[in-house]
Amino acid sequence: MKKIRAGILGATGMVGQQYLALLENHPWFEVSCVAASERSAGKKYSEAVSGRWHMQKEIPQTAKELMVRDAAQAKEIAKECDFVFSALDPPVAKILEEKYAEAGTPVVSNASTHRWTRDVPMLIPEINAEHISIIPAQQKNRGWKKGFIAVKPNCSLQSYMTPLFALHKKFSVKKVIVTTLQAVSGAGHPGVSSFDIIDNVIPFIGGEEEKSENEPLKILGSMRNGEIVNASGIEISAHCNRVPVIDGHLACVSVSFERKPSRAEILDAWKKFRGVPQELKLPFAPKQPIIYREEENRPQPRLDRDTDKGMAVSVGRLRECNVLDWRFVGLSHNTIRGAAGGGILNAELLKAKKYL
Amino acid sequence: MKKIRAGILGATGMVGQQYLALLENHPWFEVSCVAASERSAGKKYSEAVSGRWHMQKEIPQTAKELMVRDAAQAKEIAKECDFVFSALDPPVAKILEEKYAEAGTPVVSNASTHRWTRDVPMLIPEINAEHISIIPAQQKNRGWKKGFIAVKPNCSLQSYMTPLFALHKKFSVKKVIVTTLQAVSGAGHPGVSSFDIIDNVIPFIGGEEEKSENEPLKILGSMRNGEIVNASGIEISAHCNRVPVIDGHLACVSVSFERKPSRAEILDAWKKFRGVPQELKLPFAPKQPIIYREEENRPQPRLDRDTDKGMAVSVGRLRECNVLDWRFVGLSHNTIRGAAGGGILNAELLKAKKYL
Amino acid sequence: MKKIRAGILGATGMVGQQYLALLENHPWFEVSCVAASERSAGKKYSEAVSGRWHMQKEIPQTAKELMVRDAAQAKEIAKECDFVFSALDPPVAKILEEKYAEAGTPVVSNASTHRWTRDVPMLIPEINAEHISIIPAQQKNRGWKKGFIAVKPNCSLQSYMTPLFALHKKFSVKKVIVTTLQAVSGAGHPGVSSFDIIDNVIPFIGGEEEKSENEPLKILGSMRNGEIVNASGIEISAHCNRVPVIDGHLACVSVSFERKPSRAEILDAWKKFRGVPQELKLPFAPKQPIIYREEENRPQPRLDRDTDKGMAVSVGRLRECNVLDWRFVGLSHNTIRGAAGGGILNAELLKAKKYL
Amino acid sequence: MKKIRAGILGATGMVGQQYLALLENHPWFEVSCVAASERSAGKKYSEAVSGRWHMQKEIPQTAKELMVRDAAQAKEIAKECDFVFSALDPPVAKILEEKYAEAGTPVVSNASTHRWTRDVPMLIPEINAEHISIIPAQQKNRGWKKGFIAVKPNCSLQSYMTPLFALHKKFSVKKVIVTTLQAVSGAGHPGVSSFDIIDNVIPFIGGEEEKSENEPLKILGSMRNGEIVNASGIEISAHCNRVPVIDGHLACVSVSFERKPSRAEILDAWKKFRGVPQELKLPFAPKQPIIYREEENRPQPRLDRDTDKGMAVSVGRLRECNVLDWRFVGLSHNTIRGAAGGGILNAELLKAKKYL
Repeated sequence: MKKIRAGILGATGMVGQQYLALLENHPWFEVSCVAASERSAGKKYSEAVSGRWHMQKEIPQTAKELMVRDAAQAKEIAKECDFVFSALDPPVAKILEEKYAEAGTPVVSNASTHRWTRDVPMLIPEINAEHISIIPAQQKNRGWKKGFIAVKPNCSLQSYMTPLFALHKKFSVKKVIVTTLQAVSGAGHPGVSSFDIIDNVIPFIGGEEEKSENEPLKILGSMRNGEIVNASGIEISAHCNRVPVIDGHLACVSVSFERKPSRAEILDAWKKFRGVPQELKLPFAPKQPIIYREEENRPQPRLDRDTDKGMAVSVGRLRECNVLDWRFVGLSHNTIRGAAGGGILNAELLKAKKYL
Repeated sequence: MKKIRAGILGATGMVGQQYLALLENHPWFEVSCVAASERSAGKKYSEAVSGRWHMQKEIPQTAKELMVRDAAQAKEIAKECDFVFSALDPPVAKILEEKYAEAGTPVVSNASTHRWTRDVPMLIPEINAEHISIIPAQQKNRGWKKGFIAVKPNCSLQSYMTPLFALHKKFSVKKVIVTTLQAVSGAGHPGVSSFDIIDNVIPFIGGEEEKSENEPLKILGSMRNGEIVNASGIEISAHCNRVPVIDGHLACVSVSFERKPSRAEILDAWKKFRGVPQELKLPFAPKQPIIYREEENRPQPRLDRDTDKGMAVSVGRLRECNVLDWRFVGLSHNTIRGAAGGGILNAELLKAKKYL
Repeated sequence: MKKIRAGILGATGMVGQQYLALLENHPWFEVSCVAASERSAGKKYSEAVSGRWHMQKEIPQTAKELMVRDAAQAKEIAKECDFVFSALDPPVAKILEEKYAEAGTPVVSNASTHRWTRDVPMLIPEINAEHISIIPAQQKNRGWKKGFIAVKPNCSLQSYMTPLFALHKKFSVKKVIVTTLQAVSGAGHPGVSSFDIIDNVIPFIGGEEEKSENEPLKILGSMRNGEIVNASGIEISAHCNRVPVIDGHLACVSVSFERKPSRAEILDAWKKFRGVPQELKLPFAPKQPIIYREEENRPQPRLDRDTDKGMAVSVGRLRECNVLDWRFVGLSHNTIRGAAGGGILNAELLKAKKYL
Repeated sequence: MKKIRAGILGATGMVGQQYLALLENHPWFEVSCVAASERSAGKKYSEAVSGRWHMQKEIPQTAKELMVRDAAQAKEIAKECDFVFSALDPPVAKILEEKYAEAGTPVVSNASTHRWTRDVPMLIPEINAEHISIIPAQQKNRGWKKGFIAVKPNCSLQSYMTPLFALHKKFSVKKVIVTTLQAVSGAGHPGVSSFDIIDNVIPFIGGEEEKSENEPLKILGSMRNGEIVNASGIEISAHCNRVPVIDGHLACVSVSFERKPSRAEILDAWKKFRGVPQELKLPFAPKQPIIYREEENRPQPRLDRDTDKGMAVSVGRLRECNVLDWRFVGLSHNTIRGAAGGGILNAELLKAKKYL
């Protein structure tokens, strides 16, 4: 089988690097093009990231030799890629992502730019894979033929959305109060100053609480008249904190339901939960999307973030809540499941469903 | 004025050391006696803590030369002290604190042993100073003459109890969901293994959530028939986490009230809040017990824990909650306000009220 | 091929856990027996380490069900193992290791107990594989038939000994001043208190400087009359520091030679260096034992410790020294190359050379 | 006594903030002017640093209201200051410092710009206070009347230069190999990315080794013909590392002497060492410049950096070296002694000697 050619926009940044690291030896996709700002354009990729390659894994051999392209050259790059992953910064994404789509290239994006565009699906494939069927409407609205945009939500959600969804399907989530303890890699590089976070915690991340509260409503939303309409009847309150952890966002969740389930019902719902990626056996799909840890002090970022190659969500500490119904702790890897790995899973879903 | 002679039980441990560091040059109290386990007894204090003095400040000169006593010798030590601070481990506290009280020595304790003894006051002097009037009943119940026991609550509460109380008095707190991010010094020394907490967060502290949920009810309770009866009508749910921070417990709080106050009312209530320690101008009383930070990213443990010598509580990030009424962040120094400094303030209150 | 049965003594501790994690699916060895102190004996392994399994990887399925044995039962355990890995604490190792050897079971040890026993080889297989030929003399001295003891040196050495040896062979090392920055996992678990090391460095590790200075002399020593005689003519001075890093010991090295090599000669010597494990293609042998990093700021613990499954040594920053001849930075994974992985490589060498 | 008016150039940066924090209530100096880049000019100081005040101490009340000036307006600012502290970045310092001196304002600088200007003294007042007598020659060379430039050396030196000098005076230092473990605050703010340093060590700081090796030679140099001539006969080799510590640079030092002193001689030399600042009783002078810690695991950054208000150097672990003569560990506070505090001590020296 001939591999599908993927371009990476924003390839020199932290998420771009993670894409390259994860796509090495991908069974379906091969990186045909790396693009970044004009400043890096024209350099060999290995030179462009010299001294600022942040992954533990080495730069993949095939990527080292690629010449970095100027991401602004949408039309040219579009010809050499079957689709692109966008890890562009939001202001640049705003300008460029539509150009790629217009040029006929599907854009699988990590940027927040189009998360609230009503005909753009914001995907967690285990939850709302069916939202991809909005794509023809999106294309029609804009006169695009082959191109389109699909996005993933903010990394902070991933630690609690799938566990909540597994319960929501059966017992209807009503209220959620969630406090996140988020890793520094979520801020990119250089991101958080070490002087600010060693021996410290920062109880504020700009814009993060709003994303954590609102994006779930679109993800759980329904499609009507070519638009995704927010779910209603769910209230979420998020407290977002930065902690001195390299990778792995942890969430302390209190939740109430329309019908309060029993402990056994919750554990059973998590254990049996499978989504479209599991059914389709997508390459990056975790075998079991939600893994419950019985130990009283788990999940923990350093111990559990890499579960099933960083794509599974770990949960633990299920106990009754004195104010809402139940409490638990969730954890996911923010730069894998919450960023590049999540983007790859989206692309795999789109491929399996013949949108790529 | 002749100073009051204070003994320190558990003087070689972390909280005991903090007591010694804080009591140097205290205007009312002087440390007349340091006591610890049999193992340390008979050594000079400086020898007993050699290689395990954990304070940044040096050992006070006067303490260096004190001979460490065996804390089990309650009767003898009682003669040389006007009262004792107990920083004993709970199992030892259980055995010894009553012996000291029986021997005629008031015990101002940090241990959890007697927090739920119904005639023992559990004090945050800004909140429930009047609970000390239970002491005569306590003495009567046990046939003690001069001795008694007074305790302080768990350190995790301090970051949110005083701010909540300032609002509770006016608007009646109904429900609280709080997530704490607690410093490693709260576990004493050696406490948390560095291997467990570097690049990590532990979402569990044994017994801490129960204390954080229940102790407030006694603190806000009322006295009836020589007993302190828990407050009712308040529900608290606590998620307690350990984070890689040296000192300073941070709390993310969501709260609802019988009557939802306005933002201005809350800020005003915090700003104007003063308690008995402030009225009495106790030496360790913070001038303003609750300090609101306007910056969007404060309070932070490293920057704010030492506010007013570590005795004030810092709050910030007041914003409406999507589920309950309001949200905020609270912070206090866990080994000063939350441990030895809090104990000293209790003793000052007892002295000012002539119980010492 | 039938696998060789390996026992693990001290199986519940940190190094013991690392052995189990690394030996899963080993092509030659299978863990037939896990032994620990009497306290753990009789429990299932998964129960014995419940709440204190410190590896990111899960407990291997086959190990979970093994019943933990009392390590003191040397004779019984010896029957069920073809050899044992000893991760016992030194005082226990002192008592037990000889009993196992006497009972006919080779002991591949991580303990410091027998490092200075003159007929016990202290192995870094890339450097002194030939020292295993002392074993028959060792057996003869003690009247042991099949059993013997072979040990590995201290973890701190691994970051600089192999790079130094590669140069020593050609240019004769004369003087070495080395400063180590050592990870907390080197102290085992619980090891270093988090209160002592967050926002801090401890410029002292008990006994570590002596080991770092003296053990190289035996490793580079020669065999005469059934004894290993220290190398002479080499002076080593070590400054050992503990730093807040999870895994990976880093060493800053200044070195002088009998003949000062050129930069090109050094880089060439490192690049081409191969040892017996590489010749024998031992399963745990790194393909290239010494990997030079060209980047000006490498090697770094977090980025480079896992190189070649944690078995290779990374070096970098080769530059002339104003006082001695050359300077460089070395790095190795202290619990893999420096502990369990090193022990496994020793066992593989012994198997390939038919001592097991 | 009327206070001397001090301006602070680069007042909004990290070192500038440290100057403001330390100068509050200084007995001799008052901050009359704060200057920074054009971007901050015209704002109230409290606004200019809003959200980026990095000190634990609050902004001094008097500084809050000062209007930030454009540092480029040298002539105007010169009129309002009796001298200026320069915490400018090197490229800006290169342009502006001479302008201030030309305008008649002495410049006490932290920048590296003029460290190698031959008629500019580079001062550690305990070591080379007499170098200030080069100032008249400097003024003559440039036709300056009242203005001049005096600088302080790099922060990394402070942990070992004074201890070495105390020995050098008596026993003549010949060779030094030093490995530094440097705090992140040394890189300013934002400085080191948290992603790069959590669970890590970076064995490289650009330019730092060269400074650490060469600046001592000028500091120990002699004055001839209006120039400071480097000391000769001393060889220094430095390995500089960044570690995850907030404040406090630690140095592991091996040193040889013309005449090897005894342990008692070294301890005596350190204990009795006093310099000009101590003789003159300068306000910021530490009482005892070098403090030897007897504990085997001290000095440590977090415990010892604040010794004598962060102005003393702590030493410990004196032991013989296998390669050179002696080894020890030194520690100093890099943003106090090594930056703003050191600058203030320089200004105090200049004032006492009537250069201000």
